[in-house]
Amino acid sequence: MPADNTIFTEPLTTEAFAPFGQVIQTENADHYPINLGMTERFHDLARIELEGDKARPLISIFRGRPYALPLDLLMMERHPLGSQAFFPLSTHPWLVIVAQDNRGEPTRLRAFRPAAGQGVNIAINVWHGVLTPLEKTSEFLVVDRGGEGNNLEEHHFKHPWTIVADRPG
Amino acid sequence: MPADNTIFTEPLTTEAFAPFGQVIQTENADHYPINLGMTERFHDLARIELEGDKARPLISIFRGRPYALPLDLLMMERHPLGSQAFFPLSTHPWLVIVAQDNRGEPTRLRAFRPAAGQGVNIAINVWHGVLTPLEKTSEFLVVDRGGEGNNLEEHHFKHPWTIVADRPG
Repeated sequence: MPADNTIFTEPLTTEAFAPFGQVIQTENADHYPINLGMTERFHDLARIELEGDKARPLISIFRGRPYALPLDLLMMERHPLGSQAFFPLSTHPWLVIVAQDNRGEPTRLRAFRPAAGQGVNIAINVWHGVLTPLEKTSEFLVVDRGGEGNNLEEHHFKHPWTIVADRPG
Repeated sequence: MPADNTIFTEPLTTEAFAPFGQVIQTENADHYPINLGMTERFHDLARIELEGDKARPLISIFRGRPYALPLDLLMMERHPLGSQAFFPLSTHPWLVIVAQDNRGEPTRLRAFRPAAGQGVNIAINVWHGVLTPLEKTSEFLVVDRGGEGNNLEEHHFKHPWTIVADRPG
């Protein structure tokens, strides 16, 4: 029987992720044809949030080294001035670890396992783990915020959480 | 000998594309480690431009059907209120067709052939062809502008340009 500090991974779905931001995917998205029907536009898939002085959107690429499961999670962070979107540039597995907030501390952690073709936009000020590729070094296109002010808050756990693979059955 | 309306494709490079926007790629980009060294951030790779009323950045996915070469190009467009970034979600070949402006008409066309791992951000009001995958239906992550106002201008050529593969030799 797992200890109380165990988090099982789970599939990423729009509904389950709704408290934390948006799933970026073509499935069930609004779309319409452009370019004389040669292109289908899956439109406006994320709510980009940009607060504070001189805020502007950035496009960056993150190249992340892989973690192994079970994974000991010691720290989560949040960005009080902007959302942060991640879209994978490969089909390697990865995790999106998020949490609700309880008086300034992350609580009720979830570890989502995106399918191929799924990205996420983590909403402003939502607690999340660092980029977590599994198995292989993986690249992600990232849309987040540039500007002035402190856009990073970290929370270090006294006791680590342990992320393990999906609950059996 | 090719007719005067022939455009040869050419490799996409930062230098050649500079008049039209930015190449989005890790190669030669500013980068620094984050997440205790587990992630490398290739930082701020595109200049996102957002003008006009209620302007906001959008994240969308374009799914484009492929064109064959030689390609007859009948129309180019530009977006007077915002930049438009395209990053491929596959390694299929595609083209980025752009042009300079001459008194409201596209001139001196170029047809860039990105390598795997290269995207582009087409600057505000730069003439460009529609999304042009080659060979296979391909998806792209797109960051462009939402908001009010007319953000589309089209130019229809009296005589089509013909895009052909790279100049031999």
